Amino acid sequence: MAGNSTGKEFTVTTFGESHGKVVGVVVDGCPAGLSLSEADIQAELDRRIPADPKIVSARIEKDVPKILSGVFNGFTTGAPIAVMVENRDAESTSYEEIKDLPRPGHADYPAGIKYGGFNDYRGGGRFSGRVTVALIMAGAIAKKLLSKFGVDVLAYTTSIGKVKSDRKLSAEEIRKNRYRAATRCPDLACAEKMEEAIVNARKEGESVGGIAECIVLNVPPGVGEPMFDSLDADLAKALFNVPAVKGVEFGLGFEIAKLKGSESNDAYIVEGGRVSASTDNMGGVLGGLSNGMPIMMRVAIKPTPSIGKEQKTVNLSKMEDATVKVKGRHDPCVVPKAVPAVEAAVAVTLADHMIRSGYIPKVLERHK
Amino acid sequence: MAGNSTGKEFTVTTFGESHGKVVGVVVDGCPAGLSLSEADIQAELDRRIPADPKIVSARIEKDVPKILSGVFNGFTTGAPIAVMVENRDAESTSYEEIKDLPRPGHADYPAGIKYGGFNDYRGGGRFSGRVTVALIMAGAIAKKLLSKFGVDVLAYTTSIGKVKSDRKLSAEEIRKNRYRAATRCPDLACAEKMEEAIVNARKEGESVGGIAECIVLNVPPGVGEPMFDSLDADLAKALFNVPAVKGVEFGLGFEIAKLKGSESNDAYIVEGGRVSASTDNMGGVLGGLSNGMPIMMRVAIKPTPSIGKEQKTVNLSKMEDATVKVKGRHDPCVVPKAVPAVEAAVAVTLADHMIRSGYIPKVLERHK
Amino acid sequence: MAGNSTGKEFTVTTFGESHGKVVGVVVDGCPAGLSLSEADIQAELDRRIPADPKIVSARIEKDVPKILSGVFNGFTTGAPIAVMVENRDAESTSYEEIKDLPRPGHADYPAGIKYGGFNDYRGGGRFSGRVTVALIMAGAIAKKLLSKFGVDVLAYTTSIGKVKSDRKLSAEEIRKNRYRAATRCPDLACAEKMEEAIVNARKEGESVGGIAECIVLNVPPGVGEPMFDSLDADLAKALFNVPAVKGVEFGLGFEIAKLKGSESNDAYIVEGGRVSASTDNMGGVLGGLSNGMPIMMRVAIKPTPSIGKEQKTVNLSKMEDATVKVKGRHDPCVVPKAVPAVEAAVAVTLADHMIRSGYIPKVLERHK
Amino acid sequence: MAGNSTGKEFTVTTFGESHGKVVGVVVDGCPAGLSLSEADIQAELDRRIPADPKIVSARIEKDVPKILSGVFNGFTTGAPIAVMVENRDAESTSYEEIKDLPRPGHADYPAGIKYGGFNDYRGGGRFSGRVTVALIMAGAIAKKLLSKFGVDVLAYTTSIGKVKSDRKLSAEEIRKNRYRAATRCPDLACAEKMEEAIVNARKEGESVGGIAECIVLNVPPGVGEPMFDSLDADLAKALFNVPAVKGVEFGLGFEIAKLKGSESNDAYIVEGGRVSASTDNMGGVLGGLSNGMPIMMRVAIKPTPSIGKEQKTVNLSKMEDATVKVKGRHDPCVVPKAVPAVEAAVAVTLADHMIRSGYIPKVLERHK
Repeated sequence: MAGNSTGKEFTVTTFGESHGKVVGVVVDGCPAGLSLSEADIQAELDRRIPADPKIVSARIEKDVPKILSGVFNGFTTGAPIAVMVENRDAESTSYEEIKDLPRPGHADYPAGIKYGGFNDYRGGGRFSGRVTVALIMAGAIAKKLLSKFGVDVLAYTTSIGKVKSDRKLSAEEIRKNRYRAATRCPDLACAEKMEEAIVNARKEGESVGGIAECIVLNVPPGVGEPMFDSLDADLAKALFNVPAVKGVEFGLGFEIAKLKGSESNDAYIVEGGRVSASTDNMGGVLGGLSNGMPIMMRVAIKPTPSIGKEQKTVNLSKMEDATVKVKGRHDPCVVPKAVPAVEAAVAVTLADHMIRSGYIPKVLERHK
Repeated sequence: MAGNSTGKEFTVTTFGESHGKVVGVVVDGCPAGLSLSEADIQAELDRRIPADPKIVSARIEKDVPKILSGVFNGFTTGAPIAVMVENRDAESTSYEEIKDLPRPGHADYPAGIKYGGFNDYRGGGRFSGRVTVALIMAGAIAKKLLSKFGVDVLAYTTSIGKVKSDRKLSAEEIRKNRYRAATRCPDLACAEKMEEAIVNARKEGESVGGIAECIVLNVPPGVGEPMFDSLDADLAKALFNVPAVKGVEFGLGFEIAKLKGSESNDAYIVEGGRVSASTDNMGGVLGGLSNGMPIMMRVAIKPTPSIGKEQKTVNLSKMEDATVKVKGRHDPCVVPKAVPAVEAAVAVTLADHMIRSGYIPKVLERHK
Repeated sequence: MAGNSTGKEFTVTTFGESHGKVVGVVVDGCPAGLSLSEADIQAELDRRIPADPKIVSARIEKDVPKILSGVFNGFTTGAPIAVMVENRDAESTSYEEIKDLPRPGHADYPAGIKYGGFNDYRGGGRFSGRVTVALIMAGAIAKKLLSKFGVDVLAYTTSIGKVKSDRKLSAEEIRKNRYRAATRCPDLACAEKMEEAIVNARKEGESVGGIAECIVLNVPPGVGEPMFDSLDADLAKALFNVPAVKGVEFGLGFEIAKLKGSESNDAYIVEGGRVSASTDNMGGVLGGLSNGMPIMMRVAIKPTPSIGKEQKTVNLSKMEDATVKVKGRHDPCVVPKAVPAVEAAVAVTLADHMIRSGYIPKVLERHK
Repeated sequence: MAGNSTGKEFTVTTFGESHGKVVGVVVDGCPAGLSLSEADIQAELDRRIPADPKIVSARIEKDVPKILSGVFNGFTTGAPIAVMVENRDAESTSYEEIKDLPRPGHADYPAGIKYGGFNDYRGGGRFSGRVTVALIMAGAIAKKLLSKFGVDVLAYTTSIGKVKSDRKLSAEEIRKNRYRAATRCPDLACAEKMEEAIVNARKEGESVGGIAECIVLNVPPGVGEPMFDSLDADLAKALFNVPAVKGVEFGLGFEIAKLKGSESNDAYIVEGGRVSASTDNMGGVLGGLSNGMPIMMRVAIKPTPSIGKEQKTVNLSKMEDATVKVKGRHDPCVVPKAVPAVEAAVAVTLADHMIRSGYIPKVLERHK
């Protein structure tokens, strides 16, 4: 069974390749009665590419989404919503040679094996970061839906290479500032240092990784479907599907391994007449269920595998050692582009689970 | 949609609660023609509980698996395989009070909300670590299947609290020694210090967390189903479904965020006539596909939430602050019991994906 | 992907073989808070075998269901419900020879191919009518659930061989009388003639087929998930999974092909302040959605393939023509046993779809 | 869970409405390495609309398919294949009134309830026969794939209203002649009488139904996934999803209910060194598995619900009896358009099951 769909109630199917005609998505299961327009999707797509040529690839397309189905008179109808953008700024010539010389850190080699050499290798094809455009379009729909229920998904950069933001920010500051800096770090002073780190890496023909965090506010307790579709499990799955993610943690994450039970448990308290907790070490998930506290995740993002430097590889036709110098256009750091993809992955998963749990109905309201 | 099944080809459905009659599992999609007996499953179950009363809960049941279907004349038939163990050593009286006083760090509170108070709360019910018995039984079948294709899944403890094993062990040492020490650390000198840490925590009425690692050998390249069923995504999902896991990383994991592209990329080399790599920083997965290198994961496991100390909570009927002292029997550290669960989660996921990729056929061999 | 599960919200997984240890089922997704006991399931199982030795196989087991999980203090918990019965009255010796001599009309031959000869062939194994015990147990749970929402599923025999009941019965008569006669025909005068037809067939070493009808009352309009999970499509799928079914039709069924539009369309009328229709030619389904009228289906059931007469077959090891005389115990007509299986198949499908449509919530009521 | 996807290995997701921008489909799981072009899809689409204005609606669009993804250098890549056609000839004004006056026999009423009045009602929206364009495009891909394995899917009309073709035709005649007559009846003499029946119905402002048959040649034995994904069950499900289908039967179908076991069983014979059968009363399916004989199905298709005559309905806003006269453009008989949809539904289901059974590999051949 192929794996280009996800979600059991809010089901997302993506299609398209980096250098093909389009990148598109079909969302099935979005409740009827949600106000939705292309502008909603455009707003999220615009966040994908920082308006700062110093830190992004030379491929800058204004992606204009077209809603093909599922919306009528400005509202979702309950039918599948298909949305696509056209690929216009693709340059394919520089990719011919990777057929034989798989780029280290990229999917070229295993994809060639898996698909018997038939995969579209241009620009990474189906494995390109560009394909997150489809995820972001689905995420835009999910975020609009979640917002009707007060749920807010906020991702942002917390480190780039060795530059780390340590300032504790309020949810409000994060919401307001996370897309102001090109690096998507809402700690704006730190954001500048991060940008420097990226610019320096680029100068050296190098790339850098980083860490992004995501908080989700106002998820009610009891969302998630253990044993196997635990909320954290499905969120983690969605996050590992974002290109370049190599680690996911909730709450204190790996740090928790060093603590004692009395240090890690979040004590319940009554606050404003409802159950809350004095800490959020668990990141808002207990036993695979949301517990009513903010959900808090962190993802580790690897340095862009495409670098200007010459790298060792093998020549697959000759089966001998070789070198490759990656041409094509590439970002020296994918963290800024990963941030909206993280938001989308989380939003899509939560929309799915809130419908599954019965918190979001199949029809938002009766038509007037 | 409830979430008690996982896997699209090798499909595992579990049932049973901590203090109910049984814990059981149905495996659908196991190829016909696999030699399988209750002894195969017993062997894995026996690894779940270290034979060391110093570090485990007083609830020690010898779990005896019964195969109910799907095996005929010693071979799997292609029909669903149901296996169960009976619960015999359950003590339920001490759990009555948690109906109103949810234990911090446990699923009591969100589960009560989700299931409208109808959930079986005794011993954590469906959320008990005991339910991993079902996973381990499915894992035993998956491991037997994978072994026919040379694939080996090895999990082991690398840290407990602040005690960390730094010694680099060979796969052979890991395979041989990982279940020798009660702490499941194959670095046997370190294992003793870990045991001490657990014993000390128990004395204080405390608990400790830790880290387990898992390597998988001999997975061919090209296993995984991007975009949404990437191999690492599905492995991470399976691992987050293991109780108490709060973080999952592959290869260098969170460390990779600090590196440069030239440091993190695994350069391909020709070795023994086939493609290999000089490092395994990616943990054997690229673009959601296995790349032929060992798959390497690490999970962070939180301290057992049940501790002897009094903790703050709320009284749900009175909606006021309260305290709870967890009685019942519990482990001061769940890492040792998590290790075979991690192996099972990984084995089940890989069996599923290797069938999906076509590497494992639907019938192992024609009957003679 | 194996196919031993069905349903997307109310998910039924069956296991067990005719001559294995047990026949069992796991129901995942039954809402929490449904009052459920073994007696509920026993009542449905008791309907499977008519208390009339003249028309049923000599294998008469009193099937006693055991609920293994998912029920606590008399109510469903939201966790998977496993139920099983033990097989006690199996006689396997007479089945050895069918390994080489596949019985015409049975699954022996294609099953042997599919599972490489590893399938449990005793008594038809996984393909035996006995396996409907699992379906009926799941159906018992579905029917209890549906009854909370006023939905009533009533199946009954309308013809056996050439004996056909033409009397139009009220839903009330059907409900009251359908299990009174061994042939499951609520037209009791006709039921006797049907019984005669079966007895005569048995005397000749023959078998007969028949037709069963099923009506479902009080399904609200709008249930079903077109395009591909239309209500009628999923009902038909469930019905074709009942052994021996060779045809399924809704409303006027095949007769509708001869009519004109003005004759077949059901005109809407206002009745008792709500929308109704003056006829039910469509069988309660329009465009894959329930329309609020009674859902009405009919299934064609083939004569039992096991007959006492000698039949032509092939010897698979010698690849030459041969004959087989089916021993073992078998029913001269499977229609009576199919009737409760039809009810179960329909109930399980409707429970699933009413949860999918949002008509049945995930928790039936808050616990007191 | 919404239902706009079908298939577990060859997964088809459709989108689009009758009067929206497009009708489209995404096929996920088509093996890599299949030669595929827009011409392959065009050829099947061209069969949808008979070139005979006497018997079809005035809406005649030349549907031109555009492959958006998943094909590279003329071969499928293993990535999802998206294909769409634009809607150009839609006339929406005449549909405004059905918001309040649901057309008898159409999905207007239950769809309005289900989607809270948000559904796109123009031309039936998502429930229009036009949406079968998506199915036919997926079917074109499935048929191309099946043809590589010798499997041939042939549907054709056998009756229109009271005109019935009784001539037994060879598979070869069916293949050659089924699309020659506008009525899709390969018995060409009878086809003319069928056409007359349709023309007469139209003159009266009426519509007629009919029956289509479908045979599938060269399916190997053992395809199907009992218990719940039996081959006949999944085929029936697919067929009931074709608009206007009210009955499905295999082999002798409902006739079998009157026979005795010795009359209905298909005796096995050895023929040309392989197992065959002397009759095909079972329609090629036993126990939910293909048995190597031709698969043979029949579907009952209701008269087009849209007729020129005035019909009774209710006014939904006033909740009172009313009448409606359906304007818009409509076919007096949908059987001719249903025939290619039946082929597509069957082809898509078989492609799915042949991959599931392992008869079709994930990559067709290694790339040269």
